Amino acid sequence: MKLIRIFIIVSLANLQAFTQNKILVFQTDYGLKDGAVSAMKGVSMGVSKDLKIFDITHEIPAYNIWEAAYRLEQTARYWPRGTVFVSVVDPGVGSSRKSVVLKTKSGYFFVTPDNGTLTLVSESMGIAEVREIDEKVNRLKGSGKSYTFHGRDVYAYTAARLASGVISFEQVGPKLESKVIKLDYKSAAYENGVIRGNIPILDIQYGNVWTNIGDSLFAKLNLKFGDLVSVKISSGNQEVFSGSMPYVASFASVKEGENLAYLNSLLNLAFAINMGSFAEKYKISSGPTWTVEISKK
Amino acid sequence: MKLIRIFIIVSLANLQAFTQNKILVFQTDYGLKDGAVSAMKGVSMGVSKDLKIFDITHEIPAYNIWEAAYRLEQTARYWPRGTVFVSVVDPGVGSSRKSVVLKTKSGYFFVTPDNGTLTLVSESMGIAEVREIDEKVNRLKGSGKSYTFHGRDVYAYTAARLASGVISFEQVGPKLESKVIKLDYKSAAYENGVIRGNIPILDIQYGNVWTNIGDSLFAKLNLKFGDLVSVKISSGNQEVFSGSMPYVASFASVKEGENLAYLNSLLNLAFAINMGSFAEKYKISSGPTWTVEISKK
Amino acid sequence: MKLIRIFIIVSLANLQAFTQNKILVFQTDYGLKDGAVSAMKGVSMGVSKDLKIFDITHEIPAYNIWEAAYRLEQTARYWPRGTVFVSVVDPGVGSSRKSVVLKTKSGYFFVTPDNGTLTLVSESMGIAEVREIDEKVNRLKGSGKSYTFHGRDVYAYTAARLASGVISFEQVGPKLESKVIKLDYKSAAYENGVIRGNIPILDIQYGNVWTNIGDSLFAKLNLKFGDLVSVKISSGNQEVFSGSMPYVASFASVKEGENLAYLNSLLNLAFAINMGSFAEKYKISSGPTWTVEISKK
Repeated sequence: MKLIRIFIIVSLANLQAFTQNKILVFQTDYGLKDGAVSAMKGVSMGVSKDLKIFDITHEIPAYNIWEAAYRLEQTARYWPRGTVFVSVVDPGVGSSRKSVVLKTKSGYFFVTPDNGTLTLVSESMGIAEVREIDEKVNRLKGSGKSYTFHGRDVYAYTAARLASGVISFEQVGPKLESKVIKLDYKSAAYENGVIRGNIPILDIQYGNVWTNIGDSLFAKLNLKFGDLVSVKISSGNQEVFSGSMPYVASFASVKEGENLAYLNSLLNLAFAINMGSFAEKYKISSGPTWTVEISKK
Repeated sequence: MKLIRIFIIVSLANLQAFTQNKILVFQTDYGLKDGAVSAMKGVSMGVSKDLKIFDITHEIPAYNIWEAAYRLEQTARYWPRGTVFVSVVDPGVGSSRKSVVLKTKSGYFFVTPDNGTLTLVSESMGIAEVREIDEKVNRLKGSGKSYTFHGRDVYAYTAARLASGVISFEQVGPKLESKVIKLDYKSAAYENGVIRGNIPILDIQYGNVWTNIGDSLFAKLNLKFGDLVSVKISSGNQEVFSGSMPYVASFASVKEGENLAYLNSLLNLAFAINMGSFAEKYKISSGPTWTVEISKK
Repeated sequence: MKLIRIFIIVSLANLQAFTQNKILVFQTDYGLKDGAVSAMKGVSMGVSKDLKIFDITHEIPAYNIWEAAYRLEQTARYWPRGTVFVSVVDPGVGSSRKSVVLKTKSGYFFVTPDNGTLTLVSESMGIAEVREIDEKVNRLKGSGKSYTFHGRDVYAYTAARLASGVISFEQVGPKLESKVIKLDYKSAAYENGVIRGNIPILDIQYGNVWTNIGDSLFAKLNLKFGDLVSVKISSGNQEVFSGSMPYVASFASVKEGENLAYLNSLLNLAFAINMGSFAEKYKISSGPTWTVEISKK
């Protein structure tokens, strides 16, 4: 009897985790110089004044779907379960790309054009269900003649209705197959004492170079803090950097101006110069053509 | 009897629409690199912790009153009625320009120096009443020796008091004539198969060129999606662009790199390159000297 | 009897002023182009959905502790007492610099690495108590392997717990001596009709030059609005500007393009060009090497 009661409580707790929590988080490539983001938030407040509205960034480079995918992966897990994210980087507005809401196994909701934006969170968080937005119901009233601002007319409006509980996840629209459009990318891999990976993104504010080599893969090199790691960075077939640097816990472990390797805030291997810009000094950028090769020195 | 009851309910609903809703939306030319915007929000929270505070943009180019007017026009209508907007682009701080609150017929409030900022919303939304801010009452206590930051000391403070209901609209200060200072600008017009208009602003993030030719005026050309439109753009007497392009619903209707004409999110005619920057490619800017002439090809 | 009651009410009011008010205000040098600030806010909302979250700026130049100190000084006093500020400009992350919370005599809380960020507010507001953050308790669960993002794992998490009342100020961690690390800087001083000061910061958006000469010190020159003030600005031993300009209430008191001296929004003496950039025209910057000398002309 007691067991059953506990079971019910645990089930309700799990259910709770999957319910929208009135938190709505926006990401776009609109910039903040004009009124586009504000119009989206205005529409949302028109749906419900109880919403708590936040942002990831609106400075995704125009049309850069990969970076949109990466910023969701980087931040979503730090928000409470039940949070609804809107990501609008939408070069295909007006094309046949679908407007969807992804519900993840971990209890988050992502409202976005299905154009690759969901590549990373669908893998890391798992797909619970995907639904297509039914624009006959879930579209700002009176916006029918506007074909170019789905961020305001469809995504913000639907996300606000979902986050506030005006509609349930089922009322978003018809259920689709449990899959999303994925951008092509390579995972990092270990072979014979060498790890090969790539540079998905830069830590732009400080010029640090982030790799896709996670902490558990990196552990295969058996490096302790202070050990030297050999690093080769290439753009296509062109070697851009080659050298070794200590693997340390954080920047203060080396002198100002010296190179270091460390696990970044996502526990991926990264390269930096203490109080300097590694990316600028060695002219390193990010994207599918940028690869990295590391080994114990 | 039932009719009367319905009438009363409708009237109350209308009344409701004209009451402040605790939402406060800021716009300035201050930028976000220093603490000025934060000081305004701090003062507002000091007035009432129940306020819900948002932004349009703080990246209006310094002293650009026209752009301030345009951003209000672009976004205000998407917020719920009863929202209070603060716009501070104030080159004349300390001059005789008046500090006012405009209440529109559509139920919005605008707190601003009366320097042209209200040019567009006063027309599109209609003037219900204009009041001058009485600084003897509606000025941050202890700020009397500061003459250069009315954004914080007068506008944010008064707007927060109004939005939260600490003061009524009548308590803002004395009623003025129902008019506001207007910037000079020309409306678009149709004559003999040609529409002449101008370029009030660029869609800067993507390089699209927006005109002031609205959808109903544009309809006089009787164009269907796919038809070609002839476009001439001039700066003063200098022709800067001349060519024809298809009128389409959205970007995806043409190939990447091709020109298109479309109705933007405000249902004004606009020109773009799919996945490119029309403004940059043809060196087009915006402002009173930039004119446009279109006809059916 | 009545007196006692009044005394009790006043005491409670004072106590009230020293209690956290659920307002949480962030400042960093992270920029807004990536997801770092959003992760901090997500962690905070995970602590309590009742928090009201705001920003000072995230555009502090990377590693610039002096500017972080100045922005706190510029804005904190305009927020309600009980507000919790988080400032993360942290070049020494991973070093032995301490993570602290300062409670000021005026009833504000500052959560930050103790690296000079508290230089100005500790003086202007007074130190009530300083506590070191006990990371065994006050650190995001599961973040133990991340050494480089204390902004998210330690500061945002602790500040959110403090601001929401999940922990009391005493539960932050052990009490330290009532002092903080201070950056070296010189106060302005009057001698024989001359005031010598420096240029702590620029009003970057408009190009105005701000000094550290406060209104009461400036009053020693006995200048009335309209009087001329002689100004010499030097960088090290190099004289960069020398000239005189009227001391006026605000910009509109001189013609466009003319120089003026005025008391800025913090009541410090400042130099500007009406509708122009004083800093750009005369190539003036800010920092410890920039000094200024003024006298009555």
